[in-house]
Amino acid sequence: MSTSLLRPPSLLRLLGAWRAQDSAQPAYRQLAQALRMLVLDGRIGLDVRLPGERELAAALGLSRTTIAAAFDRLRDEGYLESRQGSGSVTRLPPGGAASAPADLDMTPGGNLLNWTHAALPAAPGVAPAIAAAVDALPSYLGDLGYDPLGLPVLRRAIAVHYERRGCPTSPDQIIVTNGAQQGFSLLLKLLAGPGDRVVIDHPTYHNAIQALQRAHVVPVPVGLPTHGWDIDAMDAAFRQTSPRFAYVIADFHNPTGRSMDPATRRALVAAATRSHTPLVIDETMVAMGLDFASPPPVALHDPSGRQVITLGSASKIYWGGLRSGWIRADPQTVAALGRLRTTMDMASPVLEQLAVARLIEAGEGLGARADMLRGRRDHLLGLIETHLPHWHVESPTGGLSLWAQLPRGEATALAALAESLGVRVAPGPRFGVSGAFERFLRLPFTLPEEQLTMGVERLAQADAQLHARNPRGRDSLAFALEADRLI
Amino acid sequence: MSTSLLRPPSLLRLLGAWRAQDSAQPAYRQLAQALRMLVLDGRIGLDVRLPGERELAAALGLSRTTIAAAFDRLRDEGYLESRQGSGSVTRLPPGGAASAPADLDMTPGGNLLNWTHAALPAAPGVAPAIAAAVDALPSYLGDLGYDPLGLPVLRRAIAVHYERRGCPTSPDQIIVTNGAQQGFSLLLKLLAGPGDRVVIDHPTYHNAIQALQRAHVVPVPVGLPTHGWDIDAMDAAFRQTSPRFAYVIADFHNPTGRSMDPATRRALVAAATRSHTPLVIDETMVAMGLDFASPPPVALHDPSGRQVITLGSASKIYWGGLRSGWIRADPQTVAALGRLRTTMDMASPVLEQLAVARLIEAGEGLGARADMLRGRRDHLLGLIETHLPHWHVESPTGGLSLWAQLPRGEATALAALAESLGVRVAPGPRFGVSGAFERFLRLPFTLPEEQLTMGVERLAQADAQLHARNPRGRDSLAFALEADRLI
Repeated sequence: MSTSLLRPPSLLRLLGAWRAQDSAQPAYRQLAQALRMLVLDGRIGLDVRLPGERELAAALGLSRTTIAAAFDRLRDEGYLESRQGSGSVTRLPPGGAASAPADLDMTPGGNLLNWTHAALPAAPGVAPAIAAAVDALPSYLGDLGYDPLGLPVLRRAIAVHYERRGCPTSPDQIIVTNGAQQGFSLLLKLLAGPGDRVVIDHPTYHNAIQALQRAHVVPVPVGLPTHGWDIDAMDAAFRQTSPRFAYVIADFHNPTGRSMDPATRRALVAAATRSHTPLVIDETMVAMGLDFASPPPVALHDPSGRQVITLGSASKIYWGGLRSGWIRADPQTVAALGRLRTTMDMASPVLEQLAVARLIEAGEGLGARADMLRGRRDHLLGLIETHLPHWHVESPTGGLSLWAQLPRGEATALAALAESLGVRVAPGPRFGVSGAFERFLRLPFTLPEEQLTMGVERLAQADAQLHARNPRGRDSLAFALEADRLI
Repeated sequence: MSTSLLRPPSLLRLLGAWRAQDSAQPAYRQLAQALRMLVLDGRIGLDVRLPGERELAAALGLSRTTIAAAFDRLRDEGYLESRQGSGSVTRLPPGGAASAPADLDMTPGGNLLNWTHAALPAAPGVAPAIAAAVDALPSYLGDLGYDPLGLPVLRRAIAVHYERRGCPTSPDQIIVTNGAQQGFSLLLKLLAGPGDRVVIDHPTYHNAIQALQRAHVVPVPVGLPTHGWDIDAMDAAFRQTSPRFAYVIADFHNPTGRSMDPATRRALVAAATRSHTPLVIDETMVAMGLDFASPPPVALHDPSGRQVITLGSASKIYWGGLRSGWIRADPQTVAALGRLRTTMDMASPVLEQLAVARLIEAGEGLGARADMLRGRRDHLLGLIETHLPHWHVESPTGGLSLWAQLPRGEATALAALAESLGVRVAPGPRFGVSGAFERFLRLPFTLPEEQLTMGVERLAQADAQLHARNPRGRDSLAFALEADRLI
């Protein structure tokens, strides 16, 4: 691997207001924590060489001992590797993203509230569906167990499900995948190569952005306006950038919770058709309607059957632990995806497919969980109004999170502070490219209400601390540069 | 997608001796069948433009009506698409590789014997392990179900399993994957990019070759000698081509069934270490010893723990329908693979992981199935000696297939003929690059004995027909060129 160098001004920009004013923690621990978070967030890449201790000490106005202690700590934790003559290079520790940072026990109450996941535990129907699948399994155990396109029984159930939603579908238009994320990677591999462009909603699902970047595909962000979607801007992006495809979450949009109305769907498909841009519509959240059911699928507006590709998933509505999703496309594309899949991971497990077929056939939707989620969403909206009245929040019509707008561009600094106060949140830049959305946080309402309360209280505490340090209301960057000079 | 053109001389070479002498089928059907097989085999790529009807008729010495009828048939089946002015372009039909060719009902007995899969139905322990996993599931249903590195219980079980094999391993050296094929694609994505080189055994596992080619990675084949491995040649390839890694199946080698002896393992690791070439050792077949158990893992000879990466799989020993595998590597590499995986398909399903943990903890090996496989192997060896005494076959010490050497380079022609006689076999070139191994077929001994008998009888019939047409013993190519002139 080749190493790239991060210069002090860039690192200062990334760090923002990393130091909590009234924290009991010494500066070296706070600095280590801020750097660790940037690495875990992917905002500092792996294998990136940090500035030297002396250079960084000068830039931050701290003693070299402080920098050395922070680096020592990160080395011990596995986030840095230092080699004679080649400086300190970012790494991930053994266990990676799954391992808890070493400072967790230092947070209030001794526990960190992880508020970054927009997902639910298993739906009540999952255990019975698995039991039924186990009953059906014996007739499959005599086969070899490989079916790159998916078990016929599941492909049929998915096709029937689209038909129920008003969108006639034959089973040969369906390929079963190991979740919607695999569906996205398969399509990415089939449709685009390094240097190609792909249009995305902006903000959009963070793992889609990461997959594009990993594949050296260039995301072309089309910003969401105050309400709905800007199809004129999409149209212009299609015509001006010749993208290989456009990735759109029509409902319920992640992270904003929006739903695209039928007229906008028609206009989107028309624009895509004019410029021959395939549309990849991510329906992972489609069943998560809270105020109304989602409109008919975008694919309905595509009579050719070749313009719209739909990603589906059992992860949000049933359970992420099933790892089951699918792609709906024209049969030719499905066949090509099947060939591609044999070189990727062959096929999906049999038992999960049997269980998901049962869940889809039963057509169990959100059910009682919709009431629960509405309750949690409204609870969270109320909490923000009470504790953070200067934040602006659009009430999401569905999905699992809301998109909170801060008065100033300080999301990363706020998230770093909040982590030291015991709550981990996803700052806006994760959902965009080029550091956009510093004025936003994604707040899932999937946690129980008492945890949401605790989360908002800790966030409000972080917000107050940040404002105490930064009373004149400037953005993270300007403030950070000045603050560091003052230290 | 861009279209490439296949010229008549190349197509003639690929077709070989496509026409069975005493077949009741008309020429157009035989030609369609031969072309279909080349497409299904990937020997003619997708989106490749075939020669025009007139041009091909002249090259094959057939009437234009015959060519047109063959193309019509392939169009009807979905293997060709013709557009005004742009000729006939290869496609895959809806349903792709999984759909049965339309001529199957024409084969003797009305059924095609598919003899291409080296895999077994589920082991007896699978159903009880799944039942136990279902019992353990409730305590997981309250979680979100995502764990990019795998469930701790399974990672521990796999680590203990390596320890039992003499190779101390900690759980943070293990990442669970959706089968060994996904393990290979993850490593490929982590370690190599387009234009990079990767050293492979030659022949080797066909899906590994396909994955390399899909990723535009250049395979550097190191031929297996008459017995064992040629470590000097490996060493030279490491030094001369600076590969990103080497992919080796030490036991039991697919397709030859060989096992690498301990001294050769030591020499291989030493050579890799000298040139800093990571070794990716595929142990998918390691539990399939028939004459002896496999020697200690290659990783045992790597005290650094950073030179050897091991791929494991539950597919061959337990069941392919579990889609469960793993990678053993240093913790740093495992962490990087975990990050990569979240953009690929997030994680493996929970239930399968619980089941595989139980299977590995129970340590159930091949058991009674070893006797069954030895019986089938010996039965197949006997059949070949009786019906095809001019073939040379190395008796495999393990694995699931044997590698049969034909007296002449006619494997593709033989396989095409055999398919029209009711048996589908995998010709040697699938296991190599640049059309190598035209003198070989892979014959799995996983089928029941009566099916092996039927398979060899049909193969012998095809062999006899090919020799009747080609009595002077020349290779496919020369023969095809001359035969086509004679028609």
